[in-house]
Amino acid sequence: MSEHEFETELSACAADIEAFLSKRLDTIAAPPRLLAAMRHGALGGGKRLRPLLVRLSAALFGVPVQDSLSAGAALEMVHCYSLIHDDLPEMDNDELRRGKPTVWKAFDPALAILAGDALLTEAFALIADPHTHQDPAIRSDLVATLALAAGSAGMVGGQVLDIEGETTPLDEDGIFQIHAKKTGALIRASAEIGAILGKAGHEERAALVLYGISAGLAFQLADDILDVTATSDALGKTAGKDVAQNKSTIVGLRGLDGAREILDHAVDQGLGALKDFDERADPLRALIRHFAKRSY
Amino acid sequence: MSEHEFETELSACAADIEAFLSKRLDTIAAPPRLLAAMRHGALGGGKRLRPLLVRLSAALFGVPVQDSLSAGAALEMVHCYSLIHDDLPEMDNDELRRGKPTVWKAFDPALAILAGDALLTEAFALIADPHTHQDPAIRSDLVATLALAAGSAGMVGGQVLDIEGETTPLDEDGIFQIHAKKTGALIRASAEIGAILGKAGHEERAALVLYGISAGLAFQLADDILDVTATSDALGKTAGKDVAQNKSTIVGLRGLDGAREILDHAVDQGLGALKDFDERADPLRALIRHFAKRSY
Repeated sequence: MSEHEFETELSACAADIEAFLSKRLDTIAAPPRLLAAMRHGALGGGKRLRPLLVRLSAALFGVPVQDSLSAGAALEMVHCYSLIHDDLPEMDNDELRRGKPTVWKAFDPALAILAGDALLTEAFALIADPHTHQDPAIRSDLVATLALAAGSAGMVGGQVLDIEGETTPLDEDGIFQIHAKKTGALIRASAEIGAILGKAGHEERAALVLYGISAGLAFQLADDILDVTATSDALGKTAGKDVAQNKSTIVGLRGLDGAREILDHAVDQGLGALKDFDERADPLRALIRHFAKRSY
Repeated sequence: MSEHEFETELSACAADIEAFLSKRLDTIAAPPRLLAAMRHGALGGGKRLRPLLVRLSAALFGVPVQDSLSAGAALEMVHCYSLIHDDLPEMDNDELRRGKPTVWKAFDPALAILAGDALLTEAFALIADPHTHQDPAIRSDLVATLALAAGSAGMVGGQVLDIEGETTPLDEDGIFQIHAKKTGALIRASAEIGAILGKAGHEERAALVLYGISAGLAFQLADDILDVTATSDALGKTAGKDVAQNKSTIVGLRGLDGAREILDHAVDQGLGALKDFDERADPLRALIRHFAKRSY
């Protein structure tokens, strides 16, 4: 798959998800100001990585693009709600994200808390909707998988560990644990959910889980590296925050070269997970390589 | 059903739910401090009204008590998460609830935000768990119903309207709309979810929905009346807040007698919804009457 083909796939997915989210967040019943805040937090930006993983993983099992948008949008809603809450004054206190004011800054903290709550709830409403998948056993599996990844054992748990890590020194294991939960769990779940949609067998599903773990690690490491090497303008958010908050990072512990080495290893692991798949897995191969390229 | 029998049912349900929640919030994986905050917000207090509605409604359709605990606990988790967020400094800024410090006060606001998020997510994990109901179609229906009631069209939407109502004068319709969403939706869903667990037919389910709407209204009206007539000690939370926040209430608009009249009407409506059910609906009849008695 050429770089150009890959970029086209990325853009197509982002456009499809934007359209789906915009329609969904126009159809649901909600007080106008709440809907505006939800839209502000979910539309108009973002790489849409998680829906892309759902899309590409599901496609591997023959699921047409149109049939994975709903689940992808749900993943994106969960991601966006977490960002809205993360940016709150009581949390990271960020006023800028994706080049725009954060939800609490554009509206107010109370509405941002509730907009996040509403988006998380709506993600589950969407997943449970028969349009997401006609088989209720699949839908039930999707809900369980998403909830586990997003909750105390995954993303939210990771956020708590991350906050605690700002005041307690972290060793490398601690940093990896935070990455695995705070960002890795949802990324892993995205790949897994594509497999669930495609009714993948146990081994194939496990392969996509391993791929998802590797992709999540590669993505986060590239992020850590970028944080040290890029500027705020290019990123659209406040760069150098890790250092400013005195956070231990892999780059801090191992240096840039050491971090890149682990990243390359994660890419190899992800590609290894896909070894039994034919060229239909090429987009996923391209994706994890793309993560690695982000860091250069 | 005697008052004594009813009180026994209330206590038994509360004890069962406490035990279930305590076990669940000990089994799940979570960083210790997050789990402690979730437990603080979910255990040790509360009337457990919503699980009670699930239990009694499900029992009407032959569902044994043990088989409705899971869904009841999920409803309670949603309720508790909403309280944790409601109490935050940026929201109602309450330091006391159920006679204890609120979660943000006992821990910190960031952890309270995340504990609420984790509880909401865990509620959906629990509902989707095969132990809640063996039929995935039922589980999917439960998720959809809970998400709709808890989200932007229901509870969270109501919270937004409630906040807006603090600065914009409300007429009676506006107040009822807030009640219906902010507290009514989840109470209604509790009754409905009992019916879903029991595989109730359309008409029976609709009857439980109407009962739930009526019970929710009666409950909220009794709460508004109590707020004017009771003291902080007895309530365990800060009384008189409605007046202090300049909130329009039914009592404010119609007076105590007028509010009681609407409450009595809501009770009649609830009993009317149950007219085609035999004595197995007596506990539900007793419950809505119990709400009315709270206000005296």
